[in-house]
Amino acid sequence: MASFHCLTFLTDYGLEDGFVAACHGILARIAPAARIIDITHLVPPGDIRRGAAVLAQAVPYFPPAVHVAVVDPGVGTARRAVAVAAGGSVFVGPDNGLLSWAIETAGGPTAAVSLTNTALWLDAVAPTFHGRDIFMPVAAHLFAGTALARAGDELDVAGLVALPRPASRVRDGTAEGEVVTVDRFGNAQLSVTGTDAALAGMMPGRAVALAWHGRALTVPFALTFGEVGPGELVCFLDSAGFVAVAVNGGSAARRLALYPGTRVTLTVMKLFIHRVSRQPRDTIMD
Amino acid sequence: MASFHCLTFLTDYGLEDGFVAACHGILARIAPAARIIDITHLVPPGDIRRGAAVLAQAVPYFPPAVHVAVVDPGVGTARRAVAVAAGGSVFVGPDNGLLSWAIETAGGPTAAVSLTNTALWLDAVAPTFHGRDIFMPVAAHLFAGTALARAGDELDVAGLVALPRPASRVRDGTAEGEVVTVDRFGNAQLSVTGTDAALAGMMPGRAVALAWHGRALTVPFALTFGEVGPGELVCFLDSAGFVAVAVNGGSAARRLALYPGTRVTLTVMKLFIHRVSRQPRDTIMD
Amino acid sequence: MASFHCLTFLTDYGLEDGFVAACHGILARIAPAARIIDITHLVPPGDIRRGAAVLAQAVPYFPPAVHVAVVDPGVGTARRAVAVAAGGSVFVGPDNGLLSWAIETAGGPTAAVSLTNTALWLDAVAPTFHGRDIFMPVAAHLFAGTALARAGDELDVAGLVALPRPASRVRDGTAEGEVVTVDRFGNAQLSVTGTDAALAGMMPGRAVALAWHGRALTVPFALTFGEVGPGELVCFLDSAGFVAVAVNGGSAARRLALYPGTRVTLTVMKLFIHRVSRQPRDTIMD
Repeated sequence: MASFHCLTFLTDYGLEDGFVAACHGILARIAPAARIIDITHLVPPGDIRRGAAVLAQAVPYFPPAVHVAVVDPGVGTARRAVAVAAGGSVFVGPDNGLLSWAIETAGGPTAAVSLTNTALWLDAVAPTFHGRDIFMPVAAHLFAGTALARAGDELDVAGLVALPRPASRVRDGTAEGEVVTVDRFGNAQLSVTGTDAALAGMMPGRAVALAWHGRALTVPFALTFGEVGPGELVCFLDSAGFVAVAVNGGSAARRLALYPGTRVTLTVMKLFIHRVSRQPRDTIMD
Repeated sequence: MASFHCLTFLTDYGLEDGFVAACHGILARIAPAARIIDITHLVPPGDIRRGAAVLAQAVPYFPPAVHVAVVDPGVGTARRAVAVAAGGSVFVGPDNGLLSWAIETAGGPTAAVSLTNTALWLDAVAPTFHGRDIFMPVAAHLFAGTALARAGDELDVAGLVALPRPASRVRDGTAEGEVVTVDRFGNAQLSVTGTDAALAGMMPGRAVALAWHGRALTVPFALTFGEVGPGELVCFLDSAGFVAVAVNGGSAARRLALYPGTRVTLTVMKLFIHRVSRQPRDTIMD
Repeated sequence: MASFHCLTFLTDYGLEDGFVAACHGILARIAPAARIIDITHLVPPGDIRRGAAVLAQAVPYFPPAVHVAVVDPGVGTARRAVAVAAGGSVFVGPDNGLLSWAIETAGGPTAAVSLTNTALWLDAVAPTFHGRDIFMPVAAHLFAGTALARAGDELDVAGLVALPRPASRVRDGTAEGEVVTVDRFGNAQLSVTGTDAALAGMMPGRAVALAWHGRALTVPFALTFGEVGPGELVCFLDSAGFVAVAVNGGSAARRLALYPGTRVTLTVMKLFIHRVSRQPRDTIMD
């Protein structure tokens, strides 16, 4: 029997309806001792990439768990429902790429099943609410000790749907990438990893030329947004290990129109910036 | 001693203040072992019908529980505070109809008390926060084993305030009803049950004529919104067992101006629709 | 070993990202048996005063706990990270005033340390996410039995950063104060305590003259907003023990432009109001 500390739960169900609670209720019925931690339920409806990014960046901080994630615009259609073992945890959800980045982060899939064992489902399954009627009940059983293999037919892990990784390339002091996600603070996280940033020569104190959508701007690369003045732009290595563009006390995404998918080039400047007290504003429109 | 697995909690307190947390804290003090599951705290302020609908649709998925619900525009006035036993659970809240649909769904009330035993309240009771000072403390005591009868004076269950059921009627291939609630996805849930829909002849593959506010539109009745193309309208039996109007990937409520209380008529068409690839848009304004 | 019932958690991290969940995951890894209650994560980004007010008003309803609070616009800069003992609880967070009102409410600080013992931190610390990498891990160790003194260097409690208390003064039937916070319902909480209100002669049934921003209005002082008609203004002693201005079923803050920091004067009138059925509207613009 595998041993999981808790379940986690990520969806696009929102918080104003009783959808999340119904799933919690099902868990309480099937696995009364289970503890569940909500990752978020505010993924924009149907936004699989956003769900995948949030999941992949939260999962590394959990002990071995059953991770249930449901952003499922194809619910009730032919897409498969799966459970995938990776790195001591199990991921349960639709096979539409949502789980793929988190599974990769956890070390890659070691086993997978299609959730075809209807004995683990609720007795009645609504075609539009597999989170409540299939995913959570199956996850609850897995948490309670049911073996993965009993949840359904074995799948070739190579056949799992994987989201394409965001574009990223580094060469000659330049890193090219795209905006992956924007957080509550308006920080735009790029697909450029800390490793790539280091390879390109980015380091705190240096300036980088940021180019996107035909616009360009020079901003300091710092350890944290608190190193620039209020309202000023900054690049830094964010808490998930990616280069991010931020405004201290404001929204970089809104100010610069940086949205998921926006292509960005960062070029390291020779210039060192010790403490930026006033930034050129000519190319910025707030 | 009754035995409850958990408490649930539904309010219009919102998530930006500490109101919900204060109630959780009170529970932790009175019944430290209790587990609490939040249903939602985003009921629009004072919207008793919305609260009643969300509660009634979540409760069936829980094990026996103490359900605490507070949408209470009359707090501090003459409305009674009650605890009502139904179907193995107990419902605690204001006697303003909020609990009534959930109690009915749970099998109807078998006993009720007015919460007059002040020994179970907090020592100081704020006239505007009975959730923290009366409802949650009493619920915590009930969870911890206090008998229902000890919470206050017995009430005749026939005298409990009940919300009127939403209008619904079926005849000759036509179902008349109203919008009961709109969920996060913009799906408009009608008061037409699956049973009534079947009586009227609705079934997946058939088309239905939707009429409301002097407007009319023909939409397919399907198993799930994923059966129509992105941006297209569909009727389906939703996860709570009611007919809903949806847009795949969009908001039917916004597109058609379907809000709680809007009267709607559905007429089953002879026409079968196997797969709708393009829908007539003439009467739709997005 | 100190004994805490639970942890609480308040931040400005929002609910749409995985930030809060990552902290919950860290807690689950370090102190698997710990229970955590979220106070709120919707403090406006960087709004230390708002965070301080919500925390101070929620804490009194909890059993002894480890209270973790992070509204930290100076993360990664020179501001200290602290743990402070007060009233049987421990408060963990940045030393920027966020904790100060709650600590005072809990009886004042009895011991404090600067979180310099890196052995209690995560192995890797992101300069922008001390909630996940420092505050929560340290709090988890404190919950699990680590002594406060082991978390870092002892501090003089007199040197902790304290937010200034909101202005408040009472004399001759008049109370002067300011708006401290506005809740979900649009109720504007003033810095005038119940004690000061009583000293000034305010009591249910009396009328008070409300003056702010050069405007003036007479409103009834009542036990609860339910005592005035829908849409009508009322002053009452709120559930945290402060005078608040409310509109029954509406937002007083929006109607009167009462925002945190707005200076307000309340003057008790000789007039008694038994039940206000229609209020003068001349100075109100909705």
